Amino acid sequence: MNLKKLTFSLLTIGMSLSPLTLQASEHPNLILTESGVERMRENVGQVPLFDKSLASVKQQVDAEIAMGIDTPIPKDFSGGYTHQRHKQNFFIAQKAGVLYQILGDEKYAKYIRDMLFQYEAMYKDLPLHPQERSYARGKLFWQCLNDSNWLVYMSQAYDAIYNYLSKDERQALETNLFRPFADFISIENPQFFNRVHNHSTWGIAAVGMIGLVMNDEELIQRALYGIDDDGLEVGGKDNDGGTIKVEGQRKGFFANLEEPFSPDGYYTEGPYYQRYAMYPFLIFALAMENNRPDLKVLQHKDNVLLKGVDALLNLSDADGEFFPLNDGQKGMSYYSASLVTAVDLAYFYGNKDPQLLSIVEKQGQVLLQESGLAAAIGVRDGKAKPYLKGSVNLSDGINGKQGGIGVLRHGNEDLTLVFKYAAQGLSHGHYDKLSFSLYEKGEEVLQDYGLARFVNIEQKGGGNYLKENTTWAKTTIAHNTLSINQQKHFGGVYDVASQHHSELFTFDANKDNVKVVSATEENAYPGTFMHRTMAVIKEESFEKPYLLDIMRVTSDSENQYDLPFYYLGQVIDNNFDYQSPTSLHPLGEENGYQHLYVEGQGSAVEGNTKFSWLGAGKYYTLTMLTDAQDDIYLTRIGANDPEFNLRREAGIMLRREKTQDTVFVSVVEPHGSYSPVSESSKNSKSSIAKLELVLNSAKYTGVSIVDVKGKTQLFIIANSDNSDTAEHAVTIDGETYRWTGPYFYQ
Amino acid sequence: MNLKKLTFSLLTIGMSLSPLTLQASEHPNLILTESGVERMRENVGQVPLFDKSLASVKQQVDAEIAMGIDTPIPKDFSGGYTHQRHKQNFFIAQKAGVLYQILGDEKYAKYIRDMLFQYEAMYKDLPLHPQERSYARGKLFWQCLNDSNWLVYMSQAYDAIYNYLSKDERQALETNLFRPFADFISIENPQFFNRVHNHSTWGIAAVGMIGLVMNDEELIQRALYGIDDDGLEVGGKDNDGGTIKVEGQRKGFFANLEEPFSPDGYYTEGPYYQRYAMYPFLIFALAMENNRPDLKVLQHKDNVLLKGVDALLNLSDADGEFFPLNDGQKGMSYYSASLVTAVDLAYFYGNKDPQLLSIVEKQGQVLLQESGLAAAIGVRDGKAKPYLKGSVNLSDGINGKQGGIGVLRHGNEDLTLVFKYAAQGLSHGHYDKLSFSLYEKGEEVLQDYGLARFVNIEQKGGGNYLKENTTWAKTTIAHNTLSINQQKHFGGVYDVASQHHSELFTFDANKDNVKVVSATEENAYPGTFMHRTMAVIKEESFEKPYLLDIMRVTSDSENQYDLPFYYLGQVIDNNFDYQSPTSLHPLGEENGYQHLYVEGQGSAVEGNTKFSWLGAGKYYTLTMLTDAQDDIYLTRIGANDPEFNLRREAGIMLRREKTQDTVFVSVVEPHGSYSPVSESSKNSKSSIAKLELVLNSAKYTGVSIVDVKGKTQLFIIANSDNSDTAEHAVTIDGETYRWTGPYFYQ
Repeated sequence: MNLKKLTFSLLTIGMSLSPLTLQASEHPNLILTESGVERMRENVGQVPLFDKSLASVKQQVDAEIAMGIDTPIPKDFSGGYTHQRHKQNFFIAQKAGVLYQILGDEKYAKYIRDMLFQYEAMYKDLPLHPQERSYARGKLFWQCLNDSNWLVYMSQAYDAIYNYLSKDERQALETNLFRPFADFISIENPQFFNRVHNHSTWGIAAVGMIGLVMNDEELIQRALYGIDDDGLEVGGKDNDGGTIKVEGQRKGFFANLEEPFSPDGYYTEGPYYQRYAMYPFLIFALAMENNRPDLKVLQHKDNVLLKGVDALLNLSDADGEFFPLNDGQKGMSYYSASLVTAVDLAYFYGNKDPQLLSIVEKQGQVLLQESGLAAAIGVRDGKAKPYLKGSVNLSDGINGKQGGIGVLRHGNEDLTLVFKYAAQGLSHGHYDKLSFSLYEKGEEVLQDYGLARFVNIEQKGGGNYLKENTTWAKTTIAHNTLSINQQKHFGGVYDVASQHHSELFTFDANKDNVKVVSATEENAYPGTFMHRTMAVIKEESFEKPYLLDIMRVTSDSENQYDLPFYYLGQVIDNNFDYQSPTSLHPLGEENGYQHLYVEGQGSAVEGNTKFSWLGAGKYYTLTMLTDAQDDIYLTRIGANDPEFNLRREAGIMLRREKTQDTVFVSVVEPHGSYSPVSESSKNSKSSIAKLELVLNSAKYTGVSIVDVKGKTQLFIIANSDNSDTAEHAVTIDGETYRWTGPYFYQ
Repeated sequence: MNLKKLTFSLLTIGMSLSPLTLQASEHPNLILTESGVERMRENVGQVPLFDKSLASVKQQVDAEIAMGIDTPIPKDFSGGYTHQRHKQNFFIAQKAGVLYQILGDEKYAKYIRDMLFQYEAMYKDLPLHPQERSYARGKLFWQCLNDSNWLVYMSQAYDAIYNYLSKDERQALETNLFRPFADFISIENPQFFNRVHNHSTWGIAAVGMIGLVMNDEELIQRALYGIDDDGLEVGGKDNDGGTIKVEGQRKGFFANLEEPFSPDGYYTEGPYYQRYAMYPFLIFALAMENNRPDLKVLQHKDNVLLKGVDALLNLSDADGEFFPLNDGQKGMSYYSASLVTAVDLAYFYGNKDPQLLSIVEKQGQVLLQESGLAAAIGVRDGKAKPYLKGSVNLSDGINGKQGGIGVLRHGNEDLTLVFKYAAQGLSHGHYDKLSFSLYEKGEEVLQDYGLARFVNIEQKGGGNYLKENTTWAKTTIAHNTLSINQQKHFGGVYDVASQHHSELFTFDANKDNVKVVSATEENAYPGTFMHRTMAVIKEESFEKPYLLDIMRVTSDSENQYDLPFYYLGQVIDNNFDYQSPTSLHPLGEENGYQHLYVEGQGSAVEGNTKFSWLGAGKYYTLTMLTDAQDDIYLTRIGANDPEFNLRREAGIMLRREKTQDTVFVSVVEPHGSYSPVSESSKNSKSSIAKLELVLNSAKYTGVSIVDVKGKTQLFIIANSDNSDTAEHAVTIDGETYRWTGPYFYQ
């Protein structure tokens, strides 16, 4: 549609053409633009991936239109019918709007209009949703969050048929539905709207987007800058345990964009929620770009939104599944619809990175918008290059100074270490300082449990967080990190945990044979200092790269230390004696210990304790440096879990009692494979002959690894000096080693 | 090579050409033939799948040749180095022989010759293998079985370089290695050789094949007809618990071919062992076909070997994995090398069934033999058609009169029921009369546990059967069938179990909406008669097909009945009250019960007890007809398993106490799906409103299934009359139903 046609259209529907209103009243102008729609129309039938996406959306929408519109009286939690129906409605309406624009078929506009008027008729008298669990109950859904989802999508649908509607129709919808809806999720629910939280981001995007369509400056300002006087007192908790208002709380879109994103694009709640929040961030930023390019929302904070897409892609395993840091549901991946949007936008509004096109290819669908068209054209024209994930160190915190996530990758994701030394991560954070997970390609070797929730499965607590999320998933013992005296980090107190973060000691991923990340934590257990150094090492005498793990602890008191490793698979071998009880009892009483059964208990070996398992057709061996006084526990998750909310998965735990300062040294070594088809078992044994602590002082900790072929590697970390230029020399067994920087390896 | 060239070749190596010896001394003549080799040579470079297979074999053999030959002094169990090395040697030597024939490169012949002479030098003085576990210890390996594997492959290697060797070389090998080797695994180990057992099949094939290469009539006769006077007494057990010699025992290849295969091609030990035994059966039969076509070994018993390939393919799930009936390791599939051989041979020597070519395509490799070439040409020429698995009823027993396996499939393997009413299955049989497993496509819904063994994983008991195979995997309670008074079927006594089999009542898979298999068992528990009827039903008001299960029991005493269902996945919902203990205790003391932990115990619901789970992204609901007096147990495998030899998987069990005659009615209903990427939960609830027993008499058992839309289906089985022509009439609630045949459904 060119300007002449547009002018004509506008005239026929009786709109004035004063320059000011023109800027705001050209429709579509939110996500779709007239020129973008024109380009999509011109390319229909010529871009396979775009055509496939268009056909798929059309089929989906046509099927829904055939079924008729249903806007039931709200009643259910997530997973229940009314919830699902209203959710489906906004998804389909948004898509129908796009189809109306691209295909010009009035049936799509009519479908949206009819649906909106059903909502208009219903909304006026709609009470709060009957389910009372939320700190911010919605009207269509049990929480304002979902109401906001609705408005983010519906504002796009409305924008798409804006010109199709009469002025009276628009006025009715805006007066009776959209404006009250926007006010409800903002002014009437400041505890929801006026935070820095993914909930608020959705609320803000919703209010801002409908404001842009309606050209309602008040709503736009509210979205960008929040509600000035929200009348909320400091404190208060939401139903996930997050604090509603803190001292000096910022608000509005800019605050939500600045605070949770680090300058590297890491989102403090973790990738699962970043994926969820990414859509409203990007879609609202795009709407602002299309309407108020002068505010440079899409480019705000040095392009942090586009950087965030790259950060998110780097926080996935070789199958594209996100690392379940903090509250994260396993299986969520870059195949999700919000990542289709994110990747297409990042490609189009970023540097047209051809590596992103290989993700687009895998996704197999594109956004029906100009950016999706461009990505599909790029794929069609053979521009895609493989997306290579290297090692990355992503800082956390508004200024990138609150710890972070270190990801070490060897080869083409042959071994991936995810090391967490971040801030608490708002209300979705776990108490797991210096914890890690380990992947071989797309398979978990040592797992991060993730969350205890079955998102959208109504039968499991309405699809909401289960109490085991607090009693198990968030606890320290649920993670591959050190638990002291069976307590959680920070005593499990959110407000305390939120004030602290771990500190990076060093990160170096420049070498092929050794990559190192090291960090310290001094607040999780007051009086105790933990320093964990992890190295991904590849030597010729080893078939595969392995992980060296050095956890050094200094404390002002004697403690009980528990260091668990949550492996996945079948026990194959071990070198220690243990008793396996006929009846299983929980390991402890609280702080997550109550959820672990003890399936075996024994004494560690003086020297090296070894334990091998087979997971997903690959062998793994854990070699731990131990004393005969150490205890080994074989555990299974699932005690005190009457509703079967937890997965019955296994762990091995090293316990060291009555100890003050100490060092835990372990190697996690992937090796060999087993095929049930050929029944061939390859390289099923560890290649490590001896793991030894050769040096341990305030200044240095040194570990030697002797392999079965007799070769020795030596790794030394300078405990107190992380300067890259500091020179060091130590003598071990009469031999002197000299190096520069925080660590030595040879 | 044409006859003229051949004559010349034979002359140059000084062989006579008398007609009799010519027939036997043309080489290769065992699996490869001169004309077959000629055809392969002519086609090199023209048949993609064949070329790919050739290149892959060449790469593998070249890599081994580069590493040099190693024939270590035998020492280890399966999985250990010497075992693996000798195993690799015979695999590679056989392949090198094929390469020598196709490519004509002498290095392959030299490699085999050198290896054979290392064995020749070693074998003369080789004592029994040091590992003493086997009832028939080998010399190169811990059991004669593996020695026989060696000879089956090495005789092919020898045949391939027969003409390359000098007469003296051949004489040395035959005198010092092959003949003593063949005598050792036969005459010196009749307890191994003279049975009807997969072990013997390998021994027989080994002796027969080397006999054919050496033109040694005595060995050939021994292979075909066994050892006349083996000096063995009746009785004796092998180390797997199988009886070595029974009264009137037959022996030799023909007996081994006739007895374990039913006329339908079902092998009584089950598909896992059929896959294993198939190779020596087929390869020896082929060798006989090439040398003694007059004996029609390949066509013996109405082509039972080729039928066996089809039976085996039909005993796999949608991913090609074999149902783990009896002792079967999960994951074994038609991708295994022995199935590549079997499918290629079945294609070429059978009716050139184009459906087999689609399996060949999936396998992605072919046998380097004439049959593999033909299959690859078929694929290249686009002849492949999809291999459609329908419902099959495979009889068991030499005459097909010892029960069988009924497989009901709806749609394109959307739901597959595997129902076992077979004979014991020799020493690899499980005590699981009338048990079943259920699959949705390639996923197990209700599992057959399979075996307790980690084949070839040395660390797990030398890769051999673990004691949990007897104490758990073979027991009745380990299966989805009825356990009475916590006893095993036949008291777990193999000799008793071997005398009996279940009886087919009816099998009908002709209708689209209902497919039925029904069988009875009266010997498993003397004095108790069990009649189980299973129907796969698809009705419009149900999204997916479901399974109806009616187990009717009549007994001369009061009993405790346990009916377990071993599901895989996460508990989603249930409608009964239960207690979940904080500490877990075993369910019982023996017969497998000692391996089950009780994770929950409660009372059934008067009417219908319901239980739902989520497995592999799909929902399932079990609806059981219950009384309030029935007990429900939620169990987990793994008690009394200190070595972690068992998988920690779950079950739900219905217990009915102090009851004489009774009927168990259940429905297993797959429905809906869950995606962790879209987080959308679809159709997560059962569509069954009510399951009811509407009729139960000596003559009829009738069940009605009312769905949530109010539609009712009625299923009636005529308990005492399975005639297809018998006419029946029953009146229920004043309505009379009339039908012909063993069951009614509407």
